[in-house]
Amino acid sequence: MSRRGADPAVSRREAQEALGAGFFRSRWVEPPDGVEELEPARLAPGFRAAGAACGLKGGGRTDVGLVACDADEVNSALLLTRNAAAAAPVRVCRDECDAGSIRAAVVNSGNANAATGARGYRDAVAMRDGAAEALGIEPRAVAVAETGTIGVPLPLGDVLRGVADAHAALSPAGGADFARSIMTTDRGPKLCTLELDGVTVSAQAKGAGMTEPGFATMLCFVQTDAVVTDPEATLRAAVAPSFERITVDGQMSTNDTVLLQANGGSGRELRPELLDAVLLQLALEIVADGEGAKRVGRAEVTEAATPEEAERVARAIANSPLVQTALAGGDPNWGRIAQAAGMALAGERLPELGAEHIDAAGLGSDEPEAELSLRLGRGESSAHVYFSDLTCEYVRLNAEYTT
Amino acid sequence: MSRRGADPAVSRREAQEALGAGFFRSRWVEPPDGVEELEPARLAPGFRAAGAACGLKGGGRTDVGLVACDADEVNSALLLTRNAAAAAPVRVCRDECDAGSIRAAVVNSGNANAATGARGYRDAVAMRDGAAEALGIEPRAVAVAETGTIGVPLPLGDVLRGVADAHAALSPAGGADFARSIMTTDRGPKLCTLELDGVTVSAQAKGAGMTEPGFATMLCFVQTDAVVTDPEATLRAAVAPSFERITVDGQMSTNDTVLLQANGGSGRELRPELLDAVLLQLALEIVADGEGAKRVGRAEVTEAATPEEAERVARAIANSPLVQTALAGGDPNWGRIAQAAGMALAGERLPELGAEHIDAAGLGSDEPEAELSLRLGRGESSAHVYFSDLTCEYVRLNAEYTT
Repeated sequence: MSRRGADPAVSRREAQEALGAGFFRSRWVEPPDGVEELEPARLAPGFRAAGAACGLKGGGRTDVGLVACDADEVNSALLLTRNAAAAAPVRVCRDECDAGSIRAAVVNSGNANAATGARGYRDAVAMRDGAAEALGIEPRAVAVAETGTIGVPLPLGDVLRGVADAHAALSPAGGADFARSIMTTDRGPKLCTLELDGVTVSAQAKGAGMTEPGFATMLCFVQTDAVVTDPEATLRAAVAPSFERITVDGQMSTNDTVLLQANGGSGRELRPELLDAVLLQLALEIVADGEGAKRVGRAEVTEAATPEEAERVARAIANSPLVQTALAGGDPNWGRIAQAAGMALAGERLPELGAEHIDAAGLGSDEPEAELSLRLGRGESSAHVYFSDLTCEYVRLNAEYTT
Repeated sequence: MSRRGADPAVSRREAQEALGAGFFRSRWVEPPDGVEELEPARLAPGFRAAGAACGLKGGGRTDVGLVACDADEVNSALLLTRNAAAAAPVRVCRDECDAGSIRAAVVNSGNANAATGARGYRDAVAMRDGAAEALGIEPRAVAVAETGTIGVPLPLGDVLRGVADAHAALSPAGGADFARSIMTTDRGPKLCTLELDGVTVSAQAKGAGMTEPGFATMLCFVQTDAVVTDPEATLRAAVAPSFERITVDGQMSTNDTVLLQANGGSGRELRPELLDAVLLQLALEIVADGEGAKRVGRAEVTEAATPEEAERVARAIANSPLVQTALAGGDPNWGRIAQAAGMALAGERLPELGAEHIDAAGLGSDEPEAELSLRLGRGESSAHVYFSDLTCEYVRLNAEYTT
């Protein structure tokens, strides 16, 4: 059980009262002492962003986003999906960008530009080049990300007009516009701006389905004026306990991208616990906003033989549609937890699992963030995974989502 | 594409007219030439069966089944789930039965007797022993199988009364009563009796959820008067292309059991294609009866580097909730097929997948049995998996299923 697991009576309301009703809404996130929330639309100093509408999503919704660092010097890190059918923008980032010195990112929502062949690759390069030209910077300093339907050619002319519009609208207070411009089935934008010890971090994310990051996840953009000397190590360390610990439907996306940009303007170091808390809260917002989701679960496995075994079992539980529907139905059905664990360890023989090894009371509670745990009795390793419940709304959304 | 895949215009009605409206309803099953359907309630000669109600399922529904071979001599094979949290009856079968000479099987539905600890094991042994005593045969010649809710102690006295009632009702025409007594969330009983070349095969199966057999599947009982000299090899060969090729929700059960019994009474060999066709049709009935399912898909992967790779990709496609909801919604969303394949091969780089590699037209059709295919362009291996669609009804059933 987690730190707060010993007190199952903490309701969401009580937790919110304890934590304040701001960005850090989850019971599973520990905000660093002294952190201050700033206006979330305002980016970290030295960054500007904007969103524009080019017609990909229709209804006048914004669907092209741009975020840029004013300074020439920026340290950055870029984590990309491991999906073997990675989208064109992911391959462009992998092959034609300087991941360590990304000044700007250009993003569209509504079209994933995945499984679009050689044309898709050329379109992603053109989108990237269009942003670089507007900004007057090197193309290799611009990352490109796209999200939406797979297998549809990009209407490049529309997107390039959107890039120009977004460039014209760039603003230090454009974080909220940018966050909205990258949404697909998200119920709302996911963003924050926080200050701690003279360092500001702003971040925007999107994601609601096709979510089981294999490395990074969905789309997330983080800007800071902190000094970050090894951005890749810093970002990997913060992604491991956050985006790599969530699942909505067990489906690794073709387009996952996380970008961290640090311009060093504050002259101070980034405190790791701040980035950890920001990414974990954003990851949990993606789970809570899972397609059709009403509740979030945290599956913890303890006493596993190895960390890998603990993680394998925790993922099997979190991805079981039977556990996910039990969470939706408020059903403390611990037998399904035993079944999923046994499936993950197929071919071995577990010590006889029984009710005394499993705490599924959270499933049966009305808490929006529910905990469950399984004690394997095989060793000393543990792992946990956050997941969303499976509801009819998920089925409806995905049975009707336009191809 | 399969044998009939080149002709996508074959509707279920046309297929039924072509095949007759009998047991072999699936377009994917080739009944052996000359096979004759007998009254399905009538077992293969030399076998008797029955069902009785002991209150596990309530509403007077039968929930204890018994099937027995009259002769002392019987060759049998028993395939059991590989789930590491296997149920008590599976462990009893594994440890305390003579798998090669099983004369009878006793079954209950409504209680899986899984994750029930030492008491569950004793209860499964007692159930087995009760059947053996009533039949006057060795306990080690009786298999025990159970299916239903996990984690609930068995009301042993009720079950033993049910066993006595079923024993009293044993009949050569008891196949349908037996098939009904093993149902849980199944919409109807699954059974057949067939004759070919002087050999009779009767079979009964159940299954609708928690279905991705790791070895055997759910419950299936097969009786024949054929001579079967190596029943385990015979059964494994027939299970590989049938029960091991289906999924409803990717969830390996704690209780999967398949039993083949051959008494040799006909003096003739069993033709493998008959057992193949019977098990494949029953496996497809389990998929078609998947919890909430309206349609069945067949995901075929060709041009994979190895058979293992082909199977891994086919399973990833078949188990993707995004592909399953596309099947439910009649949405030819081939991008989700590319995404699932890329996830199965995470960390590698696929040749650029595009529409020309994927045939998803079946998803968008109104056929109850839909085909989809993916050409990987990496080698010469192929594999296929049958799966059911994911509907709101699956969610409703599993969110409400009593613990």
